[in-house]
Amino acid sequence: MTPRLDRRDFLQRTGMVGAVAALGWWNPGRGVSGVFAADTAEPALIARTETPYNAEPPLSTLTEHWLTPLERFFIRSHGNVPAIKPEEFRLSISGMVEHPQSFTLAQLIERFPRTSTVATMTCAGNRRSEFAAVKKAPGVQWEAGAIGNAVWSGIRLADVLRAVGVTPEAKHVWFEGLDTVTDKNESFPFGGSVPLDKAFGDPPVLLATHMQKEPLRPEHGYPIRAVVPGFIGARSVKWLSKILVSDQPSTNHFQADTYKILPEDQPGRLAITPPIHEHILNSAITSVKAGTALPAGRTTVRGYALAGGVVDRTVTHVEVSVDDGKSWTLAKFDEPARPLCWVFWSADVTVTNDTRELLVRAVDSSGSTQPREMQWNVKGYQLNSWHRVPLKRGS
Amino acid sequence: MTPRLDRRDFLQRTGMVGAVAALGWWNPGRGVSGVFAADTAEPALIARTETPYNAEPPLSTLTEHWLTPLERFFIRSHGNVPAIKPEEFRLSISGMVEHPQSFTLAQLIERFPRTSTVATMTCAGNRRSEFAAVKKAPGVQWEAGAIGNAVWSGIRLADVLRAVGVTPEAKHVWFEGLDTVTDKNESFPFGGSVPLDKAFGDPPVLLATHMQKEPLRPEHGYPIRAVVPGFIGARSVKWLSKILVSDQPSTNHFQADTYKILPEDQPGRLAITPPIHEHILNSAITSVKAGTALPAGRTTVRGYALAGGVVDRTVTHVEVSVDDGKSWTLAKFDEPARPLCWVFWSADVTVTNDTRELLVRAVDSSGSTQPREMQWNVKGYQLNSWHRVPLKRGS
Repeated sequence: MTPRLDRRDFLQRTGMVGAVAALGWWNPGRGVSGVFAADTAEPALIARTETPYNAEPPLSTLTEHWLTPLERFFIRSHGNVPAIKPEEFRLSISGMVEHPQSFTLAQLIERFPRTSTVATMTCAGNRRSEFAAVKKAPGVQWEAGAIGNAVWSGIRLADVLRAVGVTPEAKHVWFEGLDTVTDKNESFPFGGSVPLDKAFGDPPVLLATHMQKEPLRPEHGYPIRAVVPGFIGARSVKWLSKILVSDQPSTNHFQADTYKILPEDQPGRLAITPPIHEHILNSAITSVKAGTALPAGRTTVRGYALAGGVVDRTVTHVEVSVDDGKSWTLAKFDEPARPLCWVFWSADVTVTNDTRELLVRAVDSSGSTQPREMQWNVKGYQLNSWHRVPLKRGS
Repeated sequence: MTPRLDRRDFLQRTGMVGAVAALGWWNPGRGVSGVFAADTAEPALIARTETPYNAEPPLSTLTEHWLTPLERFFIRSHGNVPAIKPEEFRLSISGMVEHPQSFTLAQLIERFPRTSTVATMTCAGNRRSEFAAVKKAPGVQWEAGAIGNAVWSGIRLADVLRAVGVTPEAKHVWFEGLDTVTDKNESFPFGGSVPLDKAFGDPPVLLATHMQKEPLRPEHGYPIRAVVPGFIGARSVKWLSKILVSDQPSTNHFQADTYKILPEDQPGRLAITPPIHEHILNSAITSVKAGTALPAGRTTVRGYALAGGVVDRTVTHVEVSVDDGKSWTLAKFDEPARPLCWVFWSADVTVTNDTRELLVRAVDSSGSTQPREMQWNVKGYQLNSWHRVPLKRGS
């Protein structure tokens, strides 16, 4: 259920020894989409917006390591990156609990056992830029790199909730960060909530202090962030400082008003539409860049696939097409697929002079498939139509 | 979260008073697909196989009542319908529990509080017959009627598990029925399991004794069946007589070997593929029969839609097309969509002389969409491509 890696396994899988030190750890603003050329060195991250800072790695580098090197892990911010002094940090827990409490960082670490879990995190807006082919969706114009896989370490939310004693009416656990988001002239922290069943479920929801065995970096939520395996990244609230237990979902803007699927022309549906929880089944080709002049002949295509974020689901098959979906080639997995983690795949296909695009689609163990066509929604979330890489063709 | 209806509401919604008595309650073998004509009275159920008995209602009658009248509720059997004397019935609970126990029916009813929940049940094979357009999938050739919605009443599985005391290693709850299934010269009971988190989740998994406020009928599992809201029907084991708590999923044929999504040509994947749990997002047109000569002009199309069976998901939009998906009309819901229950919808569309098919597709609050194309799997499960009703067109 909850895959765990020891340090040796971890270092072998990531190949991160040395690399991290050599590269430096992040490069805000070092590039924007399209700036770098195919034959130059790739930037670690491509900024999609500078303020707030949102960035994703170049797709071509995304599947080099199953555990994403920290400097290649996408960054999603809605406001500032707060500068937090660890000695001043407090995490408060209140609401429907028997013993409301405020913990220092040292108290949390001393009092509760540490654990680790491997989970892929992805933004609900991953691949949003592709909606432009139908109609542009507002928001950060992510390509397919707003996704990464990490060993998250910290303490279990459930242990903390048991310690403070949740009352019988409790149904939801709210999270609130220390960042400041500005929207329509109002300033407030980023927040969200998870159902109580998820908070007590397996694999555990973590209050994570470490990512890839390193202390969280400031942009990923130092000193503590929630990590909710299987849920869209928005629920894994960073710079977590307030937990509130309630019988209702969070009323924070990012839970109540956004991160919801809304059709184009149904006003008044916002209040009755549940928030997005689990990330969607998805897949992408990473080894071939858009616009590549791939010669006719045999070639190996590589990429990632991720099952829907419901516990126990795995990717069952991945297929690649070179003829716009008329025929498909079954891909091989690098390693057996595990729940809540992406799987890397490769497929040997024969490209012809008629091949205009490479396509990939995946199926997961729930029977979910990826659709040929994208279906637009107001905020542009959960796009998972067949991923297409157009090739350069010409005489 | 768990909608409850009182008796008055129930009778009003179903319109079942009188109707049940007048029709008799089921008609095994009264018709097979295609036997009845459009202008004759519809049979209550259409048998898809006689032995074991599998039957679904005509689609045109399926959305007459939001709570499906019992005589119109699909029947899925893998073996015989056991004749059970209530005074001889025992439910045993063993495995990873502190106090293994065997209960009489009277003991269960006296000891544990009763509760009700409304949930739509659907077979993983619903719509399987449509795969024939690509390649026939083996198994019962269901149209889109292997689905029904009921008020289920009984006791909570979680209450019974708490009473016998689940041990810390426990991870799964196995169910076994009193029926006899014969497969490859072996005879065994139907069975399956659910993860422990689901068994203790909200809404509750029931050990149900009643359906639509009537005692379970023999073909639906009298005297007790499991009801697992959101999961495919196969996990709601009928004629339930044995519960076993384990650290592993059930090894029963119907959990370990089937009800799994397998691609066409990957032998050896069975063991590593997780079983299907949640039913898939789906929708169907019920008000227009295939082959109808619908005149050009304005018409109202009706049907059902069901979100994926994950707690808190609802259907967010349903769209109908008369031009093979080039344009779509947003449908209205009869009532607001609720989690784990189907929603009935209607759409006013303008049929032209060029309209060859009516199409429907739905989106749920997770952002899941239905694909245009069906993607075949070995056992033909979870088909949810756009539902199409071909019209009769002539000169």
